[in-house]
Amino acid sequence: MTDENPPSTLSPQALAEACSAALAKDDHCAHALGIEVTHVEPGRAVLSMRVREDMLNGHNICHGGMLFTLADTAFAHACNSGNRNTVASACHIDYLAPGHVHDTLTAVAQARSRAGRTGVYDIEICNQDQVTIALFRGKSFQIQGNLVTPDGEQL
Amino acid sequence: MTDENPPSTLSPQALAEACSAALAKDDHCAHALGIEVTHVEPGRAVLSMRVREDMLNGHNICHGGMLFTLADTAFAHACNSGNRNTVASACHIDYLAPGHVHDTLTAVAQARSRAGRTGVYDIEICNQDQVTIALFRGKSFQIQGNLVTPDGEQL
Amino acid sequence: MTDENPPSTLSPQALAEACSAALAKDDHCAHALGIEVTHVEPGRAVLSMRVREDMLNGHNICHGGMLFTLADTAFAHACNSGNRNTVASACHIDYLAPGHVHDTLTAVAQARSRAGRTGVYDIEICNQDQVTIALFRGKSFQIQGNLVTPDGEQL
Amino acid sequence: MTDENPPSTLSPQALAEACSAALAKDDHCAHALGIEVTHVEPGRAVLSMRVREDMLNGHNICHGGMLFTLADTAFAHACNSGNRNTVASACHIDYLAPGHVHDTLTAVAQARSRAGRTGVYDIEICNQDQVTIALFRGKSFQIQGNLVTPDGEQL
Repeated sequence: MTDENPPSTLSPQALAEACSAALAKDDHCAHALGIEVTHVEPGRAVLSMRVREDMLNGHNICHGGMLFTLADTAFAHACNSGNRNTVASACHIDYLAPGHVHDTLTAVAQARSRAGRTGVYDIEICNQDQVTIALFRGKSFQIQGNLVTPDGEQL
Repeated sequence: MTDENPPSTLSPQALAEACSAALAKDDHCAHALGIEVTHVEPGRAVLSMRVREDMLNGHNICHGGMLFTLADTAFAHACNSGNRNTVASACHIDYLAPGHVHDTLTAVAQARSRAGRTGVYDIEICNQDQVTIALFRGKSFQIQGNLVTPDGEQL
Repeated sequence: MTDENPPSTLSPQALAEACSAALAKDDHCAHALGIEVTHVEPGRAVLSMRVREDMLNGHNICHGGMLFTLADTAFAHACNSGNRNTVASACHIDYLAPGHVHDTLTAVAQARSRAGRTGVYDIEICNQDQVTIALFRGKSFQIQGNLVTPDGEQL
Repeated sequence: MTDENPPSTLSPQALAEACSAALAKDDHCAHALGIEVTHVEPGRAVLSMRVREDMLNGHNICHGGMLFTLADTAFAHACNSGNRNTVASACHIDYLAPGHVHDTLTAVAQARSRAGRTGVYDIEICNQDQVTIALFRGKSFQIQGNLVTPDGEQL
């Protein structure tokens, strides 16, 4: 493993899209929650999720773990966009406002820093009224392997 | 709302159990994930979850959001054990080792500090081999309302 | 204490400057470290610090505590800009690159969210070459009291 | 660099003490603040600091950056105790109670997890009345180099 990106016949944008598709294909958890990838580009991803009744907690608001999962999934799509297998090392979330049943939440993930095998990403979750629900900051760590072949085929 | 606990006819242990039962009853999210409360006492809770296939991510390991949700749910049972509606204000998680399909994960939540309406709780997730999977620290904030009546009836 | 700002005869900008001056006057710690306030406006502050030899640690790089102190001080000027005594409740820092002796570091603090008595602020530290040294996120909590009188006199 | 400790002629305890001495010798920042190492052992360190007037902030309580610096320094002594140059990668601090002038603060740092080149450490700061002032959690990252020779001589 080196810190160089493997040569790819794809543009960075096409590579990011191929990685996102590969990541989404086997993300059983995201499927189960109805999380959808709206947009991806190198170092950035936008995902959305509709709050279902089975996502509510005992206070009748969206379970913090579901907000976290949405943000964490957006983080994964942003930090894997360069075709390096990359996982979360640590994450921090601040809850600003509750999510309610049937809200449509959007998470925007953006790289803030990448150096060596680690990166820092900021993710913001808003609802359909542009109210910020949570701020998430994640630290990523590159592990071995790639998501797709240099020409974008899934592995 | 005051910082005093409301008078209760129950012992602290019985009150903690009644609060936990009230919290669990409507926690649709925890039900959907098969999270079970093993033990609760004032300021402390032990919960478990078995990693299912629909909890795996695109790297074929347990989605960080599912680990977080388990920890966050344990946190909720520990910080609501005094019959004050209490929610998470911020959480931090460090991932130490991956969770694999069919692992049985146990989260132990313990109060570290409570002052005024805020508290700090530590949650540790281990697998069936006592390997620590994640360390979680949560900050709680008391909101209005109670979980049960002074004699432990659900509201 | 209410969530309303006290009426002030000053503009928000003049009030922010008066609060910052009041905060700086007695900040013995910031004085001792040579931290200077470059700019302040409502919810935002820019501070700088030159790395001295007595700020180095045993690895001969700027002590993480000194980077933190610079960021934390910028956070204080940003979150006290509305004339409410406000303190840090929790902070998180990610170190991205080392600071070296004689570097001039600049911290920019910006409000991300304010609701009720709590707020979230992002602080970024860069060196003289615009390299990001650290990312800091702080949670603030309003306590009782003001920094200046409604017409900006120090208390 | 490997994940193995270099062979040493010293016991783990003697090695931890030699590393701590090497770290302290050049920690200009800790000297300037009067931070003292009370005890060190593998993965654990106890340090103390007396709150001076030049450590107070504009609210007349101990500057959060000074609390952080004490905790961070204890973290450094704990995570460097195995003779591997190790630095902080990220830190989180929760403030629980204020520190006052002339308080004697004690920070206890303890390893929670070490895997590969990263570790997680918990640090608790108490005052002379055993009141917990702050909880700090740090993530460490091993870089190249050692603190002392295999027989404990400073490099």
